[in-house]
Amino acid sequence: MSSAELIAKKARIAGNILKTLSDEQRSSILYKIHDSLEKNAKLIETANKLDLEVARGSNLSESLIKRLDLFKGDKFATMLQGIIDVAKLADPVGKVLLARELDEGLTLYKITAPVGVLLVIFESRPEVIANITALSIKSGNAAILKGGKESVNTFREMSKIINDTIAANFATTGVPIGAVQLIETRQDVSDLLSQDQYIDLVVPRGSNSLVRNIKLNTKIPVLGHADGICSIYIDGEADLVKAKKITVDAKTNYPAGCNAMETLLINPKLNNWWEVLTNLNENGVCLHVTPEVKQEYLKHNPKGNVLDCDESKDFDKEFLSLDCAVKFVNSVQEAVQHINTHSSKHTDCIVTENEKNAEFFLKGVDSSGVYWNCSTRFADGFRYGFGTEVGISTSKIHARGPVGLDGLVTYQYQIRGTGQIAGDYLGAGGNRSFIHKDLDIKDIKL
Amino acid sequence: MSSAELIAKKARIAGNILKTLSDEQRSSILYKIHDSLEKNAKLIETANKLDLEVARGSNLSESLIKRLDLFKGDKFATMLQGIIDVAKLADPVGKVLLARELDEGLTLYKITAPVGVLLVIFESRPEVIANITALSIKSGNAAILKGGKESVNTFREMSKIINDTIAANFATTGVPIGAVQLIETRQDVSDLLSQDQYIDLVVPRGSNSLVRNIKLNTKIPVLGHADGICSIYIDGEADLVKAKKITVDAKTNYPAGCNAMETLLINPKLNNWWEVLTNLNENGVCLHVTPEVKQEYLKHNPKGNVLDCDESKDFDKEFLSLDCAVKFVNSVQEAVQHINTHSSKHTDCIVTENEKNAEFFLKGVDSSGVYWNCSTRFADGFRYGFGTEVGISTSKIHARGPVGLDGLVTYQYQIRGTGQIAGDYLGAGGNRSFIHKDLDIKDIKL
Repeated sequence: MSSAELIAKKARIAGNILKTLSDEQRSSILYKIHDSLEKNAKLIETANKLDLEVARGSNLSESLIKRLDLFKGDKFATMLQGIIDVAKLADPVGKVLLARELDEGLTLYKITAPVGVLLVIFESRPEVIANITALSIKSGNAAILKGGKESVNTFREMSKIINDTIAANFATTGVPIGAVQLIETRQDVSDLLSQDQYIDLVVPRGSNSLVRNIKLNTKIPVLGHADGICSIYIDGEADLVKAKKITVDAKTNYPAGCNAMETLLINPKLNNWWEVLTNLNENGVCLHVTPEVKQEYLKHNPKGNVLDCDESKDFDKEFLSLDCAVKFVNSVQEAVQHINTHSSKHTDCIVTENEKNAEFFLKGVDSSGVYWNCSTRFADGFRYGFGTEVGISTSKIHARGPVGLDGLVTYQYQIRGTGQIAGDYLGAGGNRSFIHKDLDIKDIKL
Repeated sequence: MSSAELIAKKARIAGNILKTLSDEQRSSILYKIHDSLEKNAKLIETANKLDLEVARGSNLSESLIKRLDLFKGDKFATMLQGIIDVAKLADPVGKVLLARELDEGLTLYKITAPVGVLLVIFESRPEVIANITALSIKSGNAAILKGGKESVNTFREMSKIINDTIAANFATTGVPIGAVQLIETRQDVSDLLSQDQYIDLVVPRGSNSLVRNIKLNTKIPVLGHADGICSIYIDGEADLVKAKKITVDAKTNYPAGCNAMETLLINPKLNNWWEVLTNLNENGVCLHVTPEVKQEYLKHNPKGNVLDCDESKDFDKEFLSLDCAVKFVNSVQEAVQHINTHSSKHTDCIVTENEKNAEFFLKGVDSSGVYWNCSTRFADGFRYGFGTEVGISTSKIHARGPVGLDGLVTYQYQIRGTGQIAGDYLGAGGNRSFIHKDLDIKDIKL
């Protein structure tokens, strides 16, 4: 058995055990982990300093080095608090989604259940290990973690503390060894991507190329997104004040974010539409415009900061900078068609006061987030009230959009009977009919 | 552009339009299709007779030829009624799953939306084309269909009638040409499996080898199951009457069904446990038993019909016949461990009067259906009250178990705002807090 198979199988066994534990058991180990990490802060800080030294000796950018530093400001305390926050969330496992009486004494329940085994791959920020550990244990999943090599010493130290805590508390919490495993090499990742027999979901958190590469190399479902090409459509009946405010926030609040605006579609029927572009220019945005937009915009603002856009590429591009592609569309239908052809199915927005156009947009756009009159930057687990976020999913199967604990559970159908057999019922040889009476979920206690 | 790409792109465009239609529009075309198929019954019958002639001239089995015959008994009428039944089901699109006030005038909704484009591959039964057409249009999805080559003339005739009806009613219903496309060759299927840019979900309905082959050859998510290895565990505290009744039904009611019992786990602590085996033997079942079971069973029933099981294979096997693998387990824990290792995650059952053991089993088994005291044969869309069924899914991501209309929709997050920007809120530069107040879904009308 290969090393990857051993790791995956160990995780599978741990997942099978985690699945049977109560919320109290799963949460109690998180408090213990919190305490151990707090108590061993000095050890972690020493390891983190070693990583920082190595990083400073290499040619890593200053911003990357900053992300490695776990003891900058209140980062460590925030990380610890995050574990407690997750422990306190409502149990995502065992929630009743449907309850239906099939016949007297025969009841069907659709209830949430852990996904099973997660393979989580992330980049340099060392605090992520605590976050992912908390999320996966809380949701009853076993996790195999691979962090960026720049934080290897910090990860190794934290992982040791976490695993020692799990082992020491097994007798009281029931959370098994193997619930969280750290792997260190790229070869391990690559070998694990073929363990679809044991691993249920891969969660890559990192650059577009990391995600794209993983999607190409595994049969296991991947939760995440490569590109975030978000568009805003300014309708002919938009409120100009809202349009200006929303586009500047969506582009400039955090240009490197996956929920930042990359494409601006403008309906030239809007009075004074060019003020939206002038306003973006004044806020430092460079506009990549089509010839039509260029001609009209420069008439109104001869000093406008524009570049000729490459129409074959710029509308399929995530700039991740203060750049934005701009074109005219003549109707909400045309806007929806453009977005469904070019967007990465992340988050798209219409700015309009016309309710009919808004409803058409909300219904017609095939993205995980469809917004009316607000910034695309709201696509975020914290802003949605999910407490914490595993990632943002642009896949249409299973979790979409910001994914919190709910995205780490699937469901099972339970039937609770009293000896019934199919052969007694219509369709399988008998003549008994089903009742199929839906019960009120609120009244169900399982 | 390849022929497969053209087909897939046409479906994508049709799907984008279907997504914006109302339930009334989507359902109205189903009534029209029903009427056209009824009116043109003679044409369909002629085509079907041609298929039957070809089949009789080949070496097809009599049971397969029977399945091709669309005009046997009330099959055609039942098929037509099925279209109306689907049209009358509640709209699966636009259902509100979550409604949360983020702030005054800024509300988040999680609502169901069509998956997009389905590629459905099925075998010989010609009535399936009507069923799939109804299900996909009702759920707002475009569908590309490939039926078995034995029914090619029937499919071609029905597909022509369906498409003519869609074209003739476009002006009134809005359902676009391209909503349902029929493809005829295996090469087309194989080319379409690489169109992951346009196709969202593959639904294979057919043999294990068909499903397995498709899963190996596409990056598109596949909804379905290859094997149905269902187990029943007879606990030490089982009611013997229920145990006998349930095991016979699960094994003999329809042995070729994917929800039939293939493995029987018996706790020998149960008084008179061998009666379960005698009863199965008396109902024609051949038991493939371990040496321990053989020794004990033959002591009590020397005439028992048993074969020595091959432990390395028989517990991972779908017999699809009146055969069943049998072994002893000494606890519910051991039963769960066996099932999580060997089952195909379809449907598994515990027979017991001990509530604690039952709850452990229901929580511990990682399959799409987990049953207590009833036959595994209940794993079926009709029996669950889903009206009709696209298939049974053993995948853990997205749809699990019997999949009805709900499995053909995913969800989107809508935000309806009044000009809000992220930069005004905590975490993105501002100091405004979110309200995150959940609203009662029942009160929401969108």
